[in-house]
Amino acid sequence: MRILSGVQSSGKLHIGNYYGAIRQFVQFQDTADAYYFIANYHSLNEVREPKRALELTREAAMAYLALGLDPKKAVLFRQSDVKEVLELNWLLGVVAPVAHLERAHSYKDKVAQGKSPDFGLFAYPVLMAADILLYSADAVPVGKDQIQHIEFARDWAVKFNMQYVPGYDPADPDGKEKGHAPGILKLPSAYIQSSTQTVPGIDGRKMSKSYGNTIDLFGDEKELKKRIMSIKTDSTPVEAPKPVPGAEAKETSEAPEGTQPGEGALVSKVPLYDLLKVMLPEADFRDVDASWRAGGKGYGDYKKRLLEAFHATFGPARQRYAELSADPGELERILHDGANRAREEASRLMEKVRRAVGIP
Amino acid sequence: MRILSGVQSSGKLHIGNYYGAIRQFVQFQDTADAYYFIANYHSLNEVREPKRALELTREAAMAYLALGLDPKKAVLFRQSDVKEVLELNWLLGVVAPVAHLERAHSYKDKVAQGKSPDFGLFAYPVLMAADILLYSADAVPVGKDQIQHIEFARDWAVKFNMQYVPGYDPADPDGKEKGHAPGILKLPSAYIQSSTQTVPGIDGRKMSKSYGNTIDLFGDEKELKKRIMSIKTDSTPVEAPKPVPGAEAKETSEAPEGTQPGEGALVSKVPLYDLLKVMLPEADFRDVDASWRAGGKGYGDYKKRLLEAFHATFGPARQRYAELSADPGELERILHDGANRAREEASRLMEKVRRAVGIP
Repeated sequence: MRILSGVQSSGKLHIGNYYGAIRQFVQFQDTADAYYFIANYHSLNEVREPKRALELTREAAMAYLALGLDPKKAVLFRQSDVKEVLELNWLLGVVAPVAHLERAHSYKDKVAQGKSPDFGLFAYPVLMAADILLYSADAVPVGKDQIQHIEFARDWAVKFNMQYVPGYDPADPDGKEKGHAPGILKLPSAYIQSSTQTVPGIDGRKMSKSYGNTIDLFGDEKELKKRIMSIKTDSTPVEAPKPVPGAEAKETSEAPEGTQPGEGALVSKVPLYDLLKVMLPEADFRDVDASWRAGGKGYGDYKKRLLEAFHATFGPARQRYAELSADPGELERILHDGANRAREEASRLMEKVRRAVGIP
Repeated sequence: MRILSGVQSSGKLHIGNYYGAIRQFVQFQDTADAYYFIANYHSLNEVREPKRALELTREAAMAYLALGLDPKKAVLFRQSDVKEVLELNWLLGVVAPVAHLERAHSYKDKVAQGKSPDFGLFAYPVLMAADILLYSADAVPVGKDQIQHIEFARDWAVKFNMQYVPGYDPADPDGKEKGHAPGILKLPSAYIQSSTQTVPGIDGRKMSKSYGNTIDLFGDEKELKKRIMSIKTDSTPVEAPKPVPGAEAKETSEAPEGTQPGEGALVSKVPLYDLLKVMLPEADFRDVDASWRAGGKGYGDYKKRLLEAFHATFGPARQRYAELSADPGELERILHDGANRAREEASRLMEKVRRAVGIP
């Protein structure tokens, strides 16, 4: 089974990204034929400063490698290193109805915000479908907000196959029944991750770059300490037992109706406790939990404990990240190698696609 | 000065195409640095049968070569052979407002016809702008209906330069004034051909594939004869003087208001006379004109005269076309060579473009 996963290169990664997605993404390398690409063509819709665009692309690649992505097991590459995707983008667009794109969430959201969108945003789902279909991916791990993109990719793959593959039957897309031709473009499935974890930020809202409440994975030591030390707590005295999250706190993980974008609802009333729970090994957390409920320690102590846990978990990754930062040639070599492997796959498909549409 | 001209590969060429555009297009090779590309990515929006797509691309190239395009003077290539255009297509789309594309004539016309358009049609002006800007063309010879595309290309080039070229000033796009950086994308001008000639079809409406009234340039001899012999005439007897077009006929070259698409207004009340005028050398036409007004010859004689004129004018081109048809290797060599020259130019530009946006 082939898994394809796009990595946004649009900013510093934080522990919410790790526990919410990256950890699971990286695990696919052990169970599937995994392709990961840094979506640097997509990022241009957001990032319009060249130095930053290059930096973010490198940072995303280094982060995944540092967090365990093994280029011997998985294929890691930059989107822009496999130019074939741009040709499939055009050829797929020929059969994609404008009406689909007009109802794409990402586009509608922007229009609803009163923004005047650029074509790049409008065209985004076509390039994303090309990203997926180019590698004949069986499944794409996505959040719920991305399911529509996979549906588009499926729809357009069917349209393409019906248009250009004589004998194709959408009821038998792989052509396993007698007489049907298999499609050239393989229909991907959305793999919706059930176990994703919502990690609270230092203010108790969902950890998110846009809230400025993150604990960054690869930030500098001083900023890291500052962030952890400023996790929101109440005024419970040192000796007293500390409050633990009630059951009701978990119900607020979705923003309540009427919430303005950027406000965000609390996902944790006691973010320090919840962050310790996320980061500590189970046995260690049991001890912390007991002392938390007993009282006798100040929040400062628990924050130090969290900082220690952070280093225990991410220390090796941070070191690997620093090594990769110091050796740009090594990173380039890995990405170059990944691109070669990806391109092999892409060329094979594009040969069939070109022949099907009549491009020499 | 560099001229860029796209050649549609969407059907058999006829003498209306020749006198209306091709003849002038080909002449640019003597006065300018001329680039001609066969727009086979664009054609996929219309032509969805691979064999036909390939055939039409080849036919378009053979036609231009047969009609005098000299690959030693001009650069002739297939759009799809210079993949760089697809990357510029994406990067330009990032700065192109959706609102522009929504008011593109080609798109609005389709929507007005109640058709549900595909993304390829919607995205068409972006690829066309990339076609033009990729080769830093100074001017693009266009008909009036294409001016909007050139305006888009200019607008987006300015937007791109403003976004990505520090020190760029749209008031000084070439950076000739002190301190301004020159734009990376050069602003093209529309070159509106003033001398284009409307050639009547065999029924007196404008010669057009969609009216089925064409005299094809490279059709077979039998069909050619049939077409010429069926040019619409009246019942003036052999001996009598034949009617000549009145001044009022020229005024109807535009379809009158209320004309349905596909109807088309007469552009000539006496198409045989007007076709002779188009095709014969001036001195020869004077003789024909005299005999036409004097009477004594039948329409059949004049049709034979037109057929002779056709052969005198297009005989060598038809022979060259036949030679190219018989030698696909030679055509491929010419297109390959053209693509290499075009790609050199394209790579040079794309290096700058990638650096500007932050694509490695």
